[in-house]
Amino acid sequence: MAEYMLHCFAQSGNAYKVALTLQLADADWAPRFVDFFGGETKTPAYRAINVMGEVPVLEHRGQSLAQSGVILDYLATTLGRFGANDEDERREILRWLLWDNHKLTSYTATLRFLRLLAPTPADPAVIAFLRGRAEIAWGVLDTHLAGRTHVVGERLTIADLSLCGYLFWPDEIGVDWAGYPNIAAWLGRIRGTPRWSAPYALMPGHPLPAKA
Amino acid sequence: MAEYMLHCFAQSGNAYKVALTLQLADADWAPRFVDFFGGETKTPAYRAINVMGEVPVLEHRGQSLAQSGVILDYLATTLGRFGANDEDERREILRWLLWDNHKLTSYTATLRFLRLLAPTPADPAVIAFLRGRAEIAWGVLDTHLAGRTHVVGERLTIADLSLCGYLFWPDEIGVDWAGYPNIAAWLGRIRGTPRWSAPYALMPGHPLPAKA
Repeated sequence: MAEYMLHCFAQSGNAYKVALTLQLADADWAPRFVDFFGGETKTPAYRAINVMGEVPVLEHRGQSLAQSGVILDYLATTLGRFGANDEDERREILRWLLWDNHKLTSYTATLRFLRLLAPTPADPAVIAFLRGRAEIAWGVLDTHLAGRTHVVGERLTIADLSLCGYLFWPDEIGVDWAGYPNIAAWLGRIRGTPRWSAPYALMPGHPLPAKA
Repeated sequence: MAEYMLHCFAQSGNAYKVALTLQLADADWAPRFVDFFGGETKTPAYRAINVMGEVPVLEHRGQSLAQSGVILDYLATTLGRFGANDEDERREILRWLLWDNHKLTSYTATLRFLRLLAPTPADPAVIAFLRGRAEIAWGVLDTHLAGRTHVVGERLTIADLSLCGYLFWPDEIGVDWAGYPNIAAWLGRIRGTPRWSAPYALMPGHPLPAKA
C-alpha cells in the first residue's frame, strides 16, 4: 500500500494541488477515485470522510486530512519540501493560500465548472459575473508576479502549488494567459519543474463518460 | 497611539472578524477608516499597502499583515487567546478558516454585497446562484455544529471568529437562522461572550451616505 492515499478525481484542481505536490516530491502515493460526477461526495459514506463533501482528502499514517491548504501545509512538513523558511514566510504563504481559496480558485474553478462540467447549462449572467471576478483575481496575481520568479521567496512553495491548481486548463476556463504575461511565465516555470505532470495525466477519471 | 491599528470599514465582515477578536480580548486597538465605497482600495496608495486591494490590514509593531485568516492566526499568538492547543487542533482550525474563505464567507458576503451594497442592481440569476451556493455552505456548517458548542475544541477559537464574520447580518443577507438551528444557537453563544459588539458598533463608516 502506498504511504499517502489521495481521494481525488481528474477534473478537481483542488485535488491536483496535492497530487502535483506529491508527484514533484517523488512521494510514495496512490489515488483513490472519487466518483464526484456520479454523486459520491453527496453520500452519507463520503460525508463521514469529509463533512464538507469535498475532495481532496489525504490519508497518511492513520490521519485523514481535508482542505487542500491544510494538506499542503501538512505535506510541507512531512515531505520537508516547498515550505516556509521562517515565520514571516509562513504567514506570507498562508496569505496566498487563503487568497487562493477566497478569490482565485473560488471564481476560476466555478467559472470552469459552469462552462464545462455542470449538468445543466448555466445562465450567461452567472458566467459573466464569475468571469469578471476571476479576471480581477488574475490581475492581482499577475501584478504580484511582476519581477518575481515565484509567489513567495523566489522558489517553488506550496503557495505556487495551490495557486496553479486550476490554471493549466486555460481552454476549459476560457482564458489566454498571453494577456497575463507574468502568470504565463510563472506557469511555464512550474511546468518546467522535474517530474511535473498535467492534471489529467496524474489522477483517474478522465475523460468523463459521454452523457446519456 | 494604539498598539494595534486596523484598516477597516463598518460594512466589511472580513474586517469585523479581526475587530471582534481584538474587542473580545480587550486589546489596545484603533480602527483606520478605509473609504471602500469611495474607491480607496483601488488606489495605488492602497495597493501599496495591500496588493490584493482588500481590507482588513492590521499594523502591529512595524508589521503589516493582510488576509483575515493570517491576522487571526497572528493574533492567536500575540494575544494568547482563541488559538490551538496542539498541532491537530491547529490543522482543524486552519481547515475551517480555509473553508470559510472558499465557501462560507465567499458566497455569503458576495450575496449580501449584491443585494445591499452594489452600485448597480445585480442580475437576479446571479443573486439566485450565490444564494444557492451560500445555502449549501450554511447547511454544512449547521451539520458540523450539531452537538457542538463551537466549531473546534468546544471553546471559542479563531475558527468561530472567522466563520461568524458575516452572519450577524441575517436581514442584509436575506436569511432566517431559525432554519439553521445549530447556527442560530452558536451565534447566540458568540453574542453572549463578554465584550461582544455588533459590526456597525465596532468599526467606522456606518451608515453609508445616501446615494446621489
